[in-house]
Amino acid sequence: MNQIITFGEVLMRISPRGNKKFIQSNNVEFYFGGTEVNVGISIANFGGDVKHISCISDDFIGDTAISYLRKFDVSTSAIVRSKRPLGVYFLEVGAVMRPSSISYNRSHSSFSEIQPEMVDWENALKKGKWFHWTGITPALNKGSKETLLEGLKLARAKGMQVSADPTYRSGLWKYGEDPKEVLTELVHYSTIFIGGVNEINELLGTNYSFSNEDFIEASKQLMEKFPSIEKVFDKIRTSINSSWHKIRARMWNGKEFKETQDLDITHIIDRIGTGDAYAAGIIHGLQKFDDYKAMEFGSAACAIKHTYMGDVNYATESDVINILEGDTTGRLKR
Amino acid sequence: MNQIITFGEVLMRISPRGNKKFIQSNNVEFYFGGTEVNVGISIANFGGDVKHISCISDDFIGDTAISYLRKFDVSTSAIVRSKRPLGVYFLEVGAVMRPSSISYNRSHSSFSEIQPEMVDWENALKKGKWFHWTGITPALNKGSKETLLEGLKLARAKGMQVSADPTYRSGLWKYGEDPKEVLTELVHYSTIFIGGVNEINELLGTNYSFSNEDFIEASKQLMEKFPSIEKVFDKIRTSINSSWHKIRARMWNGKEFKETQDLDITHIIDRIGTGDAYAAGIIHGLQKFDDYKAMEFGSAACAIKHTYMGDVNYATESDVINILEGDTTGRLKR
Amino acid sequence: MNQIITFGEVLMRISPRGNKKFIQSNNVEFYFGGTEVNVGISIANFGGDVKHISCISDDFIGDTAISYLRKFDVSTSAIVRSKRPLGVYFLEVGAVMRPSSISYNRSHSSFSEIQPEMVDWENALKKGKWFHWTGITPALNKGSKETLLEGLKLARAKGMQVSADPTYRSGLWKYGEDPKEVLTELVHYSTIFIGGVNEINELLGTNYSFSNEDFIEASKQLMEKFPSIEKVFDKIRTSINSSWHKIRARMWNGKEFKETQDLDITHIIDRIGTGDAYAAGIIHGLQKFDDYKAMEFGSAACAIKHTYMGDVNYATESDVINILEGDTTGRLKR
Amino acid sequence: MNQIITFGEVLMRISPRGNKKFIQSNNVEFYFGGTEVNVGISIANFGGDVKHISCISDDFIGDTAISYLRKFDVSTSAIVRSKRPLGVYFLEVGAVMRPSSISYNRSHSSFSEIQPEMVDWENALKKGKWFHWTGITPALNKGSKETLLEGLKLARAKGMQVSADPTYRSGLWKYGEDPKEVLTELVHYSTIFIGGVNEINELLGTNYSFSNEDFIEASKQLMEKFPSIEKVFDKIRTSINSSWHKIRARMWNGKEFKETQDLDITHIIDRIGTGDAYAAGIIHGLQKFDDYKAMEFGSAACAIKHTYMGDVNYATESDVINILEGDTTGRLKR
Amino acid sequence: MNQIITFGEVLMRISPRGNKKFIQSNNVEFYFGGTEVNVGISIANFGGDVKHISCISDDFIGDTAISYLRKFDVSTSAIVRSKRPLGVYFLEVGAVMRPSSISYNRSHSSFSEIQPEMVDWENALKKGKWFHWTGITPALNKGSKETLLEGLKLARAKGMQVSADPTYRSGLWKYGEDPKEVLTELVHYSTIFIGGVNEINELLGTNYSFSNEDFIEASKQLMEKFPSIEKVFDKIRTSINSSWHKIRARMWNGKEFKETQDLDITHIIDRIGTGDAYAAGIIHGLQKFDDYKAMEFGSAACAIKHTYMGDVNYATESDVINILEGDTTGRLKR
Amino acid sequence: MNQIITFGEVLMRISPRGNKKFIQSNNVEFYFGGTEVNVGISIANFGGDVKHISCISDDFIGDTAISYLRKFDVSTSAIVRSKRPLGVYFLEVGAVMRPSSISYNRSHSSFSEIQPEMVDWENALKKGKWFHWTGITPALNKGSKETLLEGLKLARAKGMQVSADPTYRSGLWKYGEDPKEVLTELVHYSTIFIGGVNEINELLGTNYSFSNEDFIEASKQLMEKFPSIEKVFDKIRTSINSSWHKIRARMWNGKEFKETQDLDITHIIDRIGTGDAYAAGIIHGLQKFDDYKAMEFGSAACAIKHTYMGDVNYATESDVINILEGDTTGRLKR
Repeated sequence: MNQIITFGEVLMRISPRGNKKFIQSNNVEFYFGGTEVNVGISIANFGGDVKHISCISDDFIGDTAISYLRKFDVSTSAIVRSKRPLGVYFLEVGAVMRPSSISYNRSHSSFSEIQPEMVDWENALKKGKWFHWTGITPALNKGSKETLLEGLKLARAKGMQVSADPTYRSGLWKYGEDPKEVLTELVHYSTIFIGGVNEINELLGTNYSFSNEDFIEASKQLMEKFPSIEKVFDKIRTSINSSWHKIRARMWNGKEFKETQDLDITHIIDRIGTGDAYAAGIIHGLQKFDDYKAMEFGSAACAIKHTYMGDVNYATESDVINILEGDTTGRLKR
Repeated sequence: MNQIITFGEVLMRISPRGNKKFIQSNNVEFYFGGTEVNVGISIANFGGDVKHISCISDDFIGDTAISYLRKFDVSTSAIVRSKRPLGVYFLEVGAVMRPSSISYNRSHSSFSEIQPEMVDWENALKKGKWFHWTGITPALNKGSKETLLEGLKLARAKGMQVSADPTYRSGLWKYGEDPKEVLTELVHYSTIFIGGVNEINELLGTNYSFSNEDFIEASKQLMEKFPSIEKVFDKIRTSINSSWHKIRARMWNGKEFKETQDLDITHIIDRIGTGDAYAAGIIHGLQKFDDYKAMEFGSAACAIKHTYMGDVNYATESDVINILEGDTTGRLKR
Repeated sequence: MNQIITFGEVLMRISPRGNKKFIQSNNVEFYFGGTEVNVGISIANFGGDVKHISCISDDFIGDTAISYLRKFDVSTSAIVRSKRPLGVYFLEVGAVMRPSSISYNRSHSSFSEIQPEMVDWENALKKGKWFHWTGITPALNKGSKETLLEGLKLARAKGMQVSADPTYRSGLWKYGEDPKEVLTELVHYSTIFIGGVNEINELLGTNYSFSNEDFIEASKQLMEKFPSIEKVFDKIRTSINSSWHKIRARMWNGKEFKETQDLDITHIIDRIGTGDAYAAGIIHGLQKFDDYKAMEFGSAACAIKHTYMGDVNYATESDVINILEGDTTGRLKR
Repeated sequence: MNQIITFGEVLMRISPRGNKKFIQSNNVEFYFGGTEVNVGISIANFGGDVKHISCISDDFIGDTAISYLRKFDVSTSAIVRSKRPLGVYFLEVGAVMRPSSISYNRSHSSFSEIQPEMVDWENALKKGKWFHWTGITPALNKGSKETLLEGLKLARAKGMQVSADPTYRSGLWKYGEDPKEVLTELVHYSTIFIGGVNEINELLGTNYSFSNEDFIEASKQLMEKFPSIEKVFDKIRTSINSSWHKIRARMWNGKEFKETQDLDITHIIDRIGTGDAYAAGIIHGLQKFDDYKAMEFGSAACAIKHTYMGDVNYATESDVINILEGDTTGRLKR
Repeated sequence: MNQIITFGEVLMRISPRGNKKFIQSNNVEFYFGGTEVNVGISIANFGGDVKHISCISDDFIGDTAISYLRKFDVSTSAIVRSKRPLGVYFLEVGAVMRPSSISYNRSHSSFSEIQPEMVDWENALKKGKWFHWTGITPALNKGSKETLLEGLKLARAKGMQVSADPTYRSGLWKYGEDPKEVLTELVHYSTIFIGGVNEINELLGTNYSFSNEDFIEASKQLMEKFPSIEKVFDKIRTSINSSWHKIRARMWNGKEFKETQDLDITHIIDRIGTGDAYAAGIIHGLQKFDDYKAMEFGSAACAIKHTYMGDVNYATESDVINILEGDTTGRLKR
Repeated sequence: MNQIITFGEVLMRISPRGNKKFIQSNNVEFYFGGTEVNVGISIANFGGDVKHISCISDDFIGDTAISYLRKFDVSTSAIVRSKRPLGVYFLEVGAVMRPSSISYNRSHSSFSEIQPEMVDWENALKKGKWFHWTGITPALNKGSKETLLEGLKLARAKGMQVSADPTYRSGLWKYGEDPKEVLTELVHYSTIFIGGVNEINELLGTNYSFSNEDFIEASKQLMEKFPSIEKVFDKIRTSINSSWHKIRARMWNGKEFKETQDLDITHIIDRIGTGDAYAAGIIHGLQKFDDYKAMEFGSAACAIKHTYMGDVNYATESDVINILEGDTTGRLKR
């Protein structure tokens, strides 16, 4: 009963090398990602037992995606296959004052057309201890929302922890339901809230500021409305420019407010998936450490992810602990 | 009044380097292609004045596609943009007894959702002399079929030549109309038939063999049913294996049957787009040469295309003429 | 009457990947550039209608160069071809305290042997509204200087705006004429001066310092000697090292002095062509905005160019406006 | 009870791209291989349940090797880790009359220093049905030989099939035992002999020729001396040059002699691992088909492996069956 | 007194990867070559003591070229440096019926502007035993011709062997002298003629055919007119297409005519420099073997060069001897 | 009598491109390095006459290594070859708070099994003026220690300067001797100590801090115990993170203490070999400049090395002098 379950779309990401644009070179690289699978792979890299559930194209691209998950020892046994193609996104990585640009081709992907009857949740959650979901999945389509809802219900029925990263991405949500209503329903099945003032304001219709005081108030109000929520973990990103960020974290666990120091990320390699690395760090940390150390672990995991190309955090548990213990000088390991 | 018009989907093609599979390396290359635009670019490389009409995504991938056409001096002024993503296909290039594999992600692409009212045909065909279409466009969707039909009607009304490559690809045609009926309607607006016994059997419901005798009979019956058709150009591919083909061409122009010698393509680099190179060679050839030399030009153009990576034929008119004049030894040009 | 005309050499640039030296790897990349064509392409990327006039080798390298310009929708209709090879330069990109190194192979290039009778200026300037020239062209050879002079005369006769970037590069100027005299003659045909104290001192034989006071004085004296000059746009680069610069701009338009804030370019990707991006920004800006906003536009265009590999500025008008409006955090665009 | 067990060294292979030599370029690619793991991965690609047992370095190179096996869904649960580095080999791929060259760095590798007590054979073979070994393992070191011997004893005790590929590589065998004696002992635990006249002559001290008659005689004598051997599968390679081979197979199953037609591999991409692909095909084939079809499957598997870069055969069961059913024209799959 | 001297231009060659065109990709590779230095490097790879004399640009490109020669242990001590750039050539490698294309940028290169007083021939030839020249050097410019002539005079005065490869390339020879006259003067200083009927016809104004009879007659007449010539070595290339050639050699040594069998080069990687590999093989062979074996060595060296990318033959003496002894199957060396 | 002698292992280094991990991509690059050969190559790049003595594998990897040294004009005439493979190390380059990781495969390499009788020291040191050794060589094996000891004895007997970089790397030293004893013996043959407080504490068993006062005291005590030592050169690295360091140097020459300013290395490309670049700078500097300028030269050499990928410092003497004279802005050299 030790398995972390992640559920969500796996996307193929295609980017030019370095900071080039597609118009500059026809040499590109591909990676796989997707916010929930990023969390799953990252936890597997920390040593967790992870199963990712998804719907993936039944072609050589889908085979490659599944083999990518296996590389990280993520269980793919509950993945279903479909005739629809895998979702794709194209990324041009920015630098300094030039932002990165993304273009998605996902609206009729294999995952976006998933239906509840395609997933055997009983079987899939058999060894489950923790379920992680994000606001992307219910935004895609009615089928993906309902499939998620079934999973969440069963997870809670089995007493699993449920972490929610209820990011609201307005560019999605085209199938006709109201984001606030849907997310509200789903958050009711969740115990750990990985999100901040923006996400809370979205859910509650409030207007809290980013101050620590407001964060605490917002968290309290959130936990009042959603009594299943036990803890709220937020992170704060200070962007000097595309290439240089600072990251810190804060939390309210119903009793205490804590926050970490800024970690200074002076030479970003890839910021995609850094929020997912934070979530993975929190989930992994909460199973091993106290709340404060879990938050520090999440924050350090988020920071080090900025140094890996691709959506995935390759850091091991000990890589993260080194940073959390203050070794941020990057001294060469011989 | 000298412009060649091509109309059809522009796809992004993504392939690993050389003969690798996606599972082997995350270094891939992209190209743009699509059967009609391949014809257009190839004619532009022969020196023709070409306009390609299409519907392309309004993002940096679409910008890159348009800039790709411009590179070859193909007019992009009639291209419309859409919120839908560009169609994509993934290709693994085979070798020897290993076939190439293709996976498409095109069924909800920007082009497949084109509607007749999106194209200003009057304006687009203003300088038009020749219109080329293929069986892919009407296979995609009702909108693309009807848009094509409007274009064909106007083209014929203006007295343009219309070449048809009525390839029947059974994996497409999912929007509910009968391929034979649709293609029959469209071929009635065509004057040059670039296709062979397979395509004729498909249209007529006949069962001709590949013999020259049957080809002539089939062509005659075709021209009887479709009196607008003046000439039929076929090509015959002999596949020793994925890496080694032979190509020859044959034609019936209502009066004469002619065929060329086999061209021996001992070391294929990329066979995608070689049929399009044949069509481009026929179209360009018919504007400059007699029927037989046009066919030889098409056949040589098809052969040399096998030596270029990507969907596009880079050969110039003089490159092709060299081969057609018998210089197939590849002697170094200093 | 809306076309921006640029006239000058197109060079092929060859560089190792990243910060490597030629001795380290035989894998290199090529780009095309040249100070005037960089300006032209950048303006085309802002949405301007641009024609570049040049003399380019009549071989596959020249074909590739022309196709490169077309990619950006720059008109190549007035380009002449020659038997001489295209000019080439080799670049090793430095880092931190290591400067970049350049080696040129341009002294007998196709452009350097251009002659006035090769360009049909009447035709080339037919739709012209603005003409841009730099101090490189007259430095190359007598023929290039005289060809430019003819163009300038006609441009002024037609009432076009003429912007001058009269950079004095002492390593050139080997054909026997006096740079100061030649540049003086050419500046007399110009209306916008894109250059600073160095260039003014060179022209006037003065010795102004870099202070704002001296810049204003120098500009006034320049405009006295060259009454056609209406405005002077300068930029100031602060180099922390090869990888980290700051950029700001200042101007004197005969009435007002203005200067911008420093833009901090903490992680330079390629500084080649950043001065040209500034000039392009000024030229484009002056057609759309007031003088101060044009200068800000130029300064932001210059800054963002440092984030693109190659000589060319890929930024669109809206990319630049985002920065100019203060969004320099590089926030990811979803 | 359905698992195929392979036991042997996993090597990192490093090669320049294409047919380059190390002295030509510092851009190289790595793959993992090793004769037994090649067999294992190939069977996994055919759909078999495979476990590979080995001893792998406990560093990021070893992690990468293990993740490579997982990609193909090969079980790595019985792999042990060691402080010694992974074995490496360097390969320069030849062409035409230029042979490929190999240089090994394996003599003190993690696997070569394996000891019997490091492998928990009981556990490792729990689900085992088939055990495959080759002559490389006993050649490396006393420890690897003895570890193999323990495994073979248990496998036979459990009634598993045991296939032997008793290749004799004279460059190995430096630890002081007599190859013939050692191999004789090991073959006594085997039921399927994947080898030909050379290997039989080596074991029996005979001098049979390559004729079919001699092959049958040799096989009979082999089966007399080693009564556990039920079937002998040989393959015959005709090398036109480094780039062009023909492959056929023959067998003696105690009752019948059969041989296949030559498969013509006109454009070899990588011949490393083609013998292992043959063995994998035989092992997989014998579990699904009759002896003759198993041999055809092996032969077709061997042939198609020549078209994949790297040591591994990526072909699926259906890829191989297509060839075996005569489709060697490499027709594109749409 | 054992040094082989080669004298001639070193060119930088730039080519796209594989068979791409420059218009297809901005990823290219560079090599160094030049007919005489190719001969020198090849002999050094056979184990000879080689000094190459040239004039090379005094920049980082020239440094890279010199370091390239050193890599092969070719002495660079007599190389002079100049302010002029290194010559460059661009190559697009063809395939099948597509020929390779070359574009040169060498007409004002560092070498083409060499002057006799720049080379200290006394010192340079101090340890010289053999001098090799080709028809390219006198074709470039008056200075290069005269520098060569001085070297040849001294070489003969010192009793060195002099091999001539008097290729006549009509695209060069622009400085106003008559090729036939110049080459005639230079051949008078030569002892070994590496060339065939074409070159002899050019020199004698004759019209011999390619038959063996005519080759013998032509050689006799050549040796009559140039009594210093002792032996004539020719090679015959049969081009099936760009990717597939056959090579054989023939000779007349004043007494005997001999010819070799065809070597079948079924998959050419790069044919540039194969003639130089032949010359190097002859020169090296004549120092070690009899005339016939020297010719066989040259022919096998020429054949194997077709399998190396770049201008240089990487084969060692033993690589060539393997082929010459009949091992053309490319069997893997373990 | 002007030759700098370096003696030590040459290792092949294999790294993924940029900051990738091996698990991310099978595209890797190789370089050669090793602390002593890095010093040798760097001095050769400054213009020194350098001979490197080593034991290198007798295969194509060893050939490539030797050709790599020749590229830099380092004499390889005293290198011996062996049947053992070349040592290899794998490097993953970190960024920001992610440290680089190294994995070695060197413990049975060709160099680690060198024996004293393999090197002809008399001959090797014939033109020797300076001998450089490091603490790596005696750490590898008894044979390498004793070979070094013989060399040192002869070097001192001939009155050569001997520089010691007695780095103590605890992961090595597995052959049973006491590091302190061995290093003590070797330092007695040395005249220039390139090391700091750590190395002195190791040798003397003291416990000095990093303060300048302690450095001076430690140096004095060192010079008392080892009267041959004339000067001590230390460098101090301040690591902000993996991507950003500061470097300064200090020295005690028996009379004076001096230290340099920090050099700020804001964007590190590769820090491997930067200590060797410092040592090379000191050795080269002491032959040309006074002690203080030699130290500045070493410090600037160390700093610029951080901007070159690979183990080797490509900077020339004048590149370093520019920095030392204060030009650290990286201004482009045209």
